[in-house]
Amino acid sequence: MVKGVRFSGVASGIKPGALDLGLVFFDEPVYAVPLYTKNRVKAAHILYNRKRVRNPVRALIVNSGCANACTGHEGVADIDAIAAAAARELGIEKSEILFASTGVIGTRLPVGKIVAALPELKRHLKEKAVELFARAIMTTDTHPKIVQGQLTGKGGSMIVGVAKGSGMINPLFATMLSFLFTDAAVPYEGLKRAVPGLGKESFERITVDGETSTNDTVIVFARNGGNADDLKPFREALGSLMRELSLMIVKDGEGATKVVHLTVNGAKRKELAEKIARRIATSPLCKTAFFGCDPNWGRIIAAAGDANVPIDQNKAEIVLQGETLVRNGVEVPFSEEKLKRLMDKKELELVVNLFGGRASYDIYTTDLTFDYVKINASYRT
Amino acid sequence: MVKGVRFSGVASGIKPGALDLGLVFFDEPVYAVPLYTKNRVKAAHILYNRKRVRNPVRALIVNSGCANACTGHEGVADIDAIAAAAARELGIEKSEILFASTGVIGTRLPVGKIVAALPELKRHLKEKAVELFARAIMTTDTHPKIVQGQLTGKGGSMIVGVAKGSGMINPLFATMLSFLFTDAAVPYEGLKRAVPGLGKESFERITVDGETSTNDTVIVFARNGGNADDLKPFREALGSLMRELSLMIVKDGEGATKVVHLTVNGAKRKELAEKIARRIATSPLCKTAFFGCDPNWGRIIAAAGDANVPIDQNKAEIVLQGETLVRNGVEVPFSEEKLKRLMDKKELELVVNLFGGRASYDIYTTDLTFDYVKINASYRT
Repeated sequence: MVKGVRFSGVASGIKPGALDLGLVFFDEPVYAVPLYTKNRVKAAHILYNRKRVRNPVRALIVNSGCANACTGHEGVADIDAIAAAAARELGIEKSEILFASTGVIGTRLPVGKIVAALPELKRHLKEKAVELFARAIMTTDTHPKIVQGQLTGKGGSMIVGVAKGSGMINPLFATMLSFLFTDAAVPYEGLKRAVPGLGKESFERITVDGETSTNDTVIVFARNGGNADDLKPFREALGSLMRELSLMIVKDGEGATKVVHLTVNGAKRKELAEKIARRIATSPLCKTAFFGCDPNWGRIIAAAGDANVPIDQNKAEIVLQGETLVRNGVEVPFSEEKLKRLMDKKELELVVNLFGGRASYDIYTTDLTFDYVKINASYRT
Repeated sequence: MVKGVRFSGVASGIKPGALDLGLVFFDEPVYAVPLYTKNRVKAAHILYNRKRVRNPVRALIVNSGCANACTGHEGVADIDAIAAAAARELGIEKSEILFASTGVIGTRLPVGKIVAALPELKRHLKEKAVELFARAIMTTDTHPKIVQGQLTGKGGSMIVGVAKGSGMINPLFATMLSFLFTDAAVPYEGLKRAVPGLGKESFERITVDGETSTNDTVIVFARNGGNADDLKPFREALGSLMRELSLMIVKDGEGATKVVHLTVNGAKRKELAEKIARRIATSPLCKTAFFGCDPNWGRIIAAAGDANVPIDQNKAEIVLQGETLVRNGVEVPFSEEKLKRLMDKKELELVVNLFGGRASYDIYTTDLTFDYVKINASYRT
């Protein structure tokens, strides 16, 4: 529970019979530090938030079931209409309300239904209702995603994070939606400088399907205040919660039965290690092999070789679940049966050592399964 | 049938009980023009051919069931041993024999079995046996892939092409193995200059799963001779057969039920159109939507926006099966039912118009299906 931050969620009718509209209300003004998708096509809420909302803010309205992306100027105008009604309902300024949407691209928001649901949404606001809010923003997620941590030496200040995300999860910005709240006061300028780096170390370290959403949004909310000394422990606690949330997202990846933690060591530079890690982490052949518990290291090395990074194929080493499969680029005899057993786990550790330098990069990915195809061949129907 | 080019295939025991070893023998010396994978990790046959074989050549030996990739110096030495035995058997020089392999990465060639099979392989050589050869080089292909064309005004000269390829088929070089033979004499230098461009317009225009094999190989074989005037019609005929072969590969893509011909128009430069086309063509979300006959254009525009190319989201137009789904970046009302019916075909036409310039690029891709996952979650078992 975060003091002064109240949550709510209702079924407004965007998705028939399901929770689809969430509200967060801040009793005191807070500063919002957002990170938005790197996709060149951006959802209306991103265009709207950037143009029409000014810090400090008082509320966040999030809907699922409709991404409000590729809806043109009308999509932005729809948010504006909802903002006007919500400002009246909540007794705050229009420019103090941030928005976020997730769901199917190309469909406009049902403004009437959302506006009609605002009084009920306000009525349900409670500090304890974070799970209701987390449920209201889910799409293909199988469970609500909430993390929390308590700051030491800060009078028991809390940080709570909420996320949704399961498919269209991509290494270059991987959250869909994620919001972090705290009752701690934090120097705004310092927080603003810290958040992008924390994003790189958390939400950018996961991938489900290599797809970057038009709607990806992370927002950290905090009261401005405190001093520079408070920033460091806050940043650490925040970073660790962001990493925890991002792991919850990848673990709940669409159709995923496994999470693979992949580390590439021994590259000349971190960016090169990252390129190789991302190439392996998005390879359909590697991901289907993970699903099949098949220690098919040939696919791993082929993907590594396809990252457009020079590698010495006679040096490469591959270690899967602690077992060395490849040394100096060739197979080390191993028991396929034993490996299959070792791979029949929910979490796999895969290490690729290049012996070409000292830089490393790690990333979390999923397997590619029948259920991923099933979910996505019929998402709209 | 190509005069003076004889084919053979046998079951040598690499794959239990199946054809797995092919031979092409040239009665007269021919010049080979190869294109090899752009993967940084290259199979032993590529390393071997580049170092040990000199034009003109007399024979080509191809095996399936074992990629002989990531087998270190031993993998190259294995080919050398087979080449020595084959040279004796065929009565030619070791340096006149080209090799190619396809199959599982990381396993060494069973040299003894292959050498033992050479006499039988030689005995079966026939000009008519191209299908036997085509079958011997298949892996997950569902049928042999053979094309042929007759050159006009060249005394009835023929070109025959053979390919294998189904998975690990990638836009940046997409064949697995493909060989083209002719009884026409063609100026070698001119052919050498022409083949890379023809490769770009054929095998580089298809993708099944975005994976680049360590073994990808295209080789065009022709007697040196003729004159510059002969080159142009030959190049045209060759290019058209290469395109036909590459389409056969993508149509036989692992698990594929559809081939999607995607054209991106109106980019500033061809490379930018290509980037967007490749991004859409390898998007798991687009490919599962194709499979599900779901006109989910939001995924198409999201992939386009994720190609790291500036696009104006308010101008984009998407036309699927002749129906305009999106104009000026927003949905044009369409009947979902009608679109589903139109998409329930083996071949789809998808056009993305950007209205940002005059450059275009087109590419062929497949859908992503349950069977792709099934095939690749259990390929080795």
